[in-house]
Amino acid sequence: MPVISQVQQVQIALGERSYPIRIGGGLLDDPASYREAPAGSDALIVSNETVAPLYAARLSQALAARHRQVHRLDLPDGEEHKTWQTLNRIFDALLGHGADRKTVLYALGGGVVGDMTGFAAACYMRGVPFIQVPTTLLAQVDSSVGGKTAINHPLGKNMIGAFHQPLAVVCDLDVLDTLPARELSAGLAEVIKYGPIADPDFLDWIEVHIEALRARDPAALAHAVRRSCEIKAAVVGQDEREAGLRAILNFGHTFGHAIEAGLGYGAWLHGEAVAAGMVMAAELSHALGLVDAGFAPRLAALLERAGLPTRGAVLDAQDNPGRYLALMRHDKKAEQGEIRFVVIDRPGHAAVRAAPDALVRDVIERCCTR
Amino acid sequence: MPVISQVQQVQIALGERSYPIRIGGGLLDDPASYREAPAGSDALIVSNETVAPLYAARLSQALAARHRQVHRLDLPDGEEHKTWQTLNRIFDALLGHGADRKTVLYALGGGVVGDMTGFAAACYMRGVPFIQVPTTLLAQVDSSVGGKTAINHPLGKNMIGAFHQPLAVVCDLDVLDTLPARELSAGLAEVIKYGPIADPDFLDWIEVHIEALRARDPAALAHAVRRSCEIKAAVVGQDEREAGLRAILNFGHTFGHAIEAGLGYGAWLHGEAVAAGMVMAAELSHALGLVDAGFAPRLAALLERAGLPTRGAVLDAQDNPGRYLALMRHDKKAEQGEIRFVVIDRPGHAAVRAAPDALVRDVIERCCTR
Repeated sequence: MPVISQVQQVQIALGERSYPIRIGGGLLDDPASYREAPAGSDALIVSNETVAPLYAARLSQALAARHRQVHRLDLPDGEEHKTWQTLNRIFDALLGHGADRKTVLYALGGGVVGDMTGFAAACYMRGVPFIQVPTTLLAQVDSSVGGKTAINHPLGKNMIGAFHQPLAVVCDLDVLDTLPARELSAGLAEVIKYGPIADPDFLDWIEVHIEALRARDPAALAHAVRRSCEIKAAVVGQDEREAGLRAILNFGHTFGHAIEAGLGYGAWLHGEAVAAGMVMAAELSHALGLVDAGFAPRLAALLERAGLPTRGAVLDAQDNPGRYLALMRHDKKAEQGEIRFVVIDRPGHAAVRAAPDALVRDVIERCCTR
Repeated sequence: MPVISQVQQVQIALGERSYPIRIGGGLLDDPASYREAPAGSDALIVSNETVAPLYAARLSQALAARHRQVHRLDLPDGEEHKTWQTLNRIFDALLGHGADRKTVLYALGGGVVGDMTGFAAACYMRGVPFIQVPTTLLAQVDSSVGGKTAINHPLGKNMIGAFHQPLAVVCDLDVLDTLPARELSAGLAEVIKYGPIADPDFLDWIEVHIEALRARDPAALAHAVRRSCEIKAAVVGQDEREAGLRAILNFGHTFGHAIEAGLGYGAWLHGEAVAAGMVMAAELSHALGLVDAGFAPRLAALLERAGLPTRGAVLDAQDNPGRYLALMRHDKKAEQGEIRFVVIDRPGHAAVRAAPDALVRDVIERCCTR
């Protein structure tokens, strides 16, 4: 068993639905990591065919003393499987095992596994408990925290879902060792996001430590994950159900979702689409007169050092801006067809704004690869 | 436009999620019935192919001034359509119309339409508002009140769902005029249920007025719907998410769900299965020494006068009790394979209990038709 380094804990404060995010090395194998799960109940570990061979047996072992039975289900890997059909496999497994209302689901994997397992937990018998065990950097700093769960619809990403908070989030930094470099970079996009929207000092820190992060330096990763979770926790604690403030966490996501939907889910990783989307959102912030001309290039330079794309994809050879606009009108933040953009309005602060189509078209024209 | 009789209102007290149940004649056509819906938003009326030709145009008309656009979707009619596939048709319609987070769903129909529309509202963009406009007696007194929404799974009824409270419930008593007699009787099963579990005087009243109710006497129906909703409101207000007390509303449902699942959904109406199930639960209460020998026959006599079955179906010619037990172990109230029965433990009071298999087998043996 690996030596357990100092465990850091960030609390999501949501009254009865409060829960800890544990961050550290060696957490996966430590039964104490899962102490919020009711003892004596059954468990179902939901993972995917990539992650399960690496970590599912170890998680199962760590849960053996706590749960009466530990079942496992491996889903196919990839955003294109975040569908009704795959979700139903979780329900089939739960009902096949006779799972009751006290059965605990464990999401062992990245954002797709976490979103689907969380949504299954929200719906099975109208709600059962679950624990997030994120194995990607993106899931550790973003998708596993905050209770958003969903599946995709052919007409839009994350369109069908629920707010359902986990009992705990267990971020074992050691599991990031097996993460492909491309996925590590995708996770860094969400880490970088927290700087512009909430903490200029953190953006400075990332600029200094970006190479250490890409080299998976444990201390650098620990700080990046903890600070990201702290910022997300503060935002979610104020606005659990995205009535307002929480929307700032979607900086870069309106453009990014258009890229993902336009190219077909899975062509770009979510973090890659968000990276290009953040540059577009930064350029839009400048076009709206909110930030100076140097901001978008500074952000693009950092994203490039993180190994991420900084220019949007061309989604339509005839009318690329028109295609982006059509896709963005389906965004969940849109209201009566008016797209709501997350923009930076001062260093470390984001806001949600509408913008004239002509301005948005111009930004898209300039920010997409030709 | 029909004359609007005195509108009665029962309040479901759930803090921020509180809402009114309006009960009276002529409510369907009155725009004021829907005043909780945000003005200027879009609306989608979800109904079925039986109810829509009768009432959808009138609802659409009543909503015309409040909403920017009023769309309609008619689903196939029947419990066998309470599936993922049909639910997806609601999501397809919402996304096809570009529905946003302020779009209001209206459930115009019986329990199936209400459960599916409510669940779609719970999941679309992680939650949009909805209003229940129940057109069956069963939906008016039970399924449209309390925020339980769900679809069925081949292995169990209402296994996939959410708690999602409506903005309002609008019970127009006039629409019951077109309800087939068999469905009226099925609704009376749930009305009768409220007597044994909560109000002995109401049981006495129903015994006196059962013929008036079957003859659709407006004053009798108004009293029955109001008192049923009051009792349900009191229970739901104390236990929104079925942590305890709320389970008593499932009196007769554990046996009843077994009948529905064993025969295939739709063979018996839900209220019919609940009627036979209540007699079985009453016999079990007696077998456990909780009520006297006269209670189950008294209940059976009333159910028979209401036009309802009072004996369970034979689900398996070889081992009928075994088949019931196997199906009931999948009930949502079951815990680690132990079935939790709602029993009457004194007049007007219900409790949740386990029971020895042998006792349950004997009750099933005696209470099913041979």
